[in-house]
Amino acid sequence: MAGGGLSSLVTMTAKHLGSGSVCPPLADGLLRCYSMKYCPYAQRAHLVLAAKKVKHDVVWVNLKNKPSWLFEKNPLGKVPILEQNGKLMFESLAVCDYLDEMYPNPPLHPSDPWEKGVDKMFVEVFTKVSGPMLKIFFNMGNGEVQAKSCEDMKVGMDIFEAEHMKRGTKYFGGNTPGMLDYMIWPWAERLELVQMIMGEDSALSPQRFPRMIQWKKDMLIDDAVIATYLPPETHANFFTTFETDPYNLRAKL
Amino acid sequence: MAGGGLSSLVTMTAKHLGSGSVCPPLADGLLRCYSMKYCPYAQRAHLVLAAKKVKHDVVWVNLKNKPSWLFEKNPLGKVPILEQNGKLMFESLAVCDYLDEMYPNPPLHPSDPWEKGVDKMFVEVFTKVSGPMLKIFFNMGNGEVQAKSCEDMKVGMDIFEAEHMKRGTKYFGGNTPGMLDYMIWPWAERLELVQMIMGEDSALSPQRFPRMIQWKKDMLIDDAVIATYLPPETHANFFTTFETDPYNLRAKL
Repeated sequence: MAGGGLSSLVTMTAKHLGSGSVCPPLADGLLRCYSMKYCPYAQRAHLVLAAKKVKHDVVWVNLKNKPSWLFEKNPLGKVPILEQNGKLMFESLAVCDYLDEMYPNPPLHPSDPWEKGVDKMFVEVFTKVSGPMLKIFFNMGNGEVQAKSCEDMKVGMDIFEAEHMKRGTKYFGGNTPGMLDYMIWPWAERLELVQMIMGEDSALSPQRFPRMIQWKKDMLIDDAVIATYLPPETHANFFTTFETDPYNLRAKL
Repeated sequence: MAGGGLSSLVTMTAKHLGSGSVCPPLADGLLRCYSMKYCPYAQRAHLVLAAKKVKHDVVWVNLKNKPSWLFEKNPLGKVPILEQNGKLMFESLAVCDYLDEMYPNPPLHPSDPWEKGVDKMFVEVFTKVSGPMLKIFFNMGNGEVQAKSCEDMKVGMDIFEAEHMKRGTKYFGGNTPGMLDYMIWPWAERLELVQMIMGEDSALSPQRFPRMIQWKKDMLIDDAVIATYLPPETHANFFTTFETDPYNLRAKL
């Protein structure tokens, strides 16, 4: 997760801490993010922290074998969680909006309130893509649900293809990525994982999604994306750590 | 929906417009909210509009028999939707945050960025209450799912009981309701509907939820709540308009 020229701003635990671990003490004033390397919601926070070059500490948390102290930080036992001076905040969108407000450079939301509202709207609408993707990942063995979800994912992505064309800018945020770009990126990064599971036909076709395919290429050269990027093989490798390796991804690596 | 001293600020269609209807023209500059009287998400927008005394127009939309023009406003076919000068915005949280920013008096978010983030976090966490409530409403005939959902709803509400106690203020927002109060209110208003469906044992008990019961009483005297309030019988009556009257609510009215 450390990378680019940003690693000097970040300290982190050597591994994901699980059951029986002790939560490392946190220095006064330092901002900490509890996270999990393969969690798309947590990646949202890392993208914003990287875009704004915020000095921070990361505690990686094992979500398959959760430490008891995780629930003292967030009763729901999820990441990302921010901690600073004994205060706690979770839920990725709340966390990212806070970071944008507290560290205003560069601003990630449009300055116009209506445009800002529209971008937040599209972040919500993106559940029409992320929801089906999660259904593909977590319905192993149910090919019917997965095939339907794959089509749903593309129908959701149609909305973003049309909106990107309407805006006519490189990124949804303009010449540089904005909050909407970063909030949806983690799922774009995992599209190859969909292909590894569902086959090449599940890929976004250049005929139907020319703009989103170019958008993805443009995102891949952004410093914050580079700093948080994991290649498809690494995402797939994470899936193989589930006992059953449901998609036989080990054989495909 | 018009009520209190606020009705002079609001124009509205006489009834919910359905399939075959024509969308009424909108005057330049006027803010319009497409809505449905019994939708808790739309009520969020009405609460904020009322709290800020924003002059606006309402078009009620029949969501069981949707007009084709609804999908030109929102491809997802849901409300609330804001329209002004040909621009459109939907998704209740985006809409309400926009209204708060555009019409800053009274401010509904805390001025401190961290506190604001924490309130947004709790709005997200409230899905632990609203999700189970929706499961109760829409799993007619499945008593097992409903009983489990009722317990889940209370476990979710425990989080808000504890947070309200921790804050020690009348409302989550302090001496007056804030965004968090308004975003969760529509579900509090529908708690009696849960009781009509699930019986008296499903009510929030004064032993377990003393603070949230008092909070609800305090919310009921707020002008914005009064302006958007519908009594339990009216919510129940809406349910009876489903062909099957699944909970035999007609007999209980």
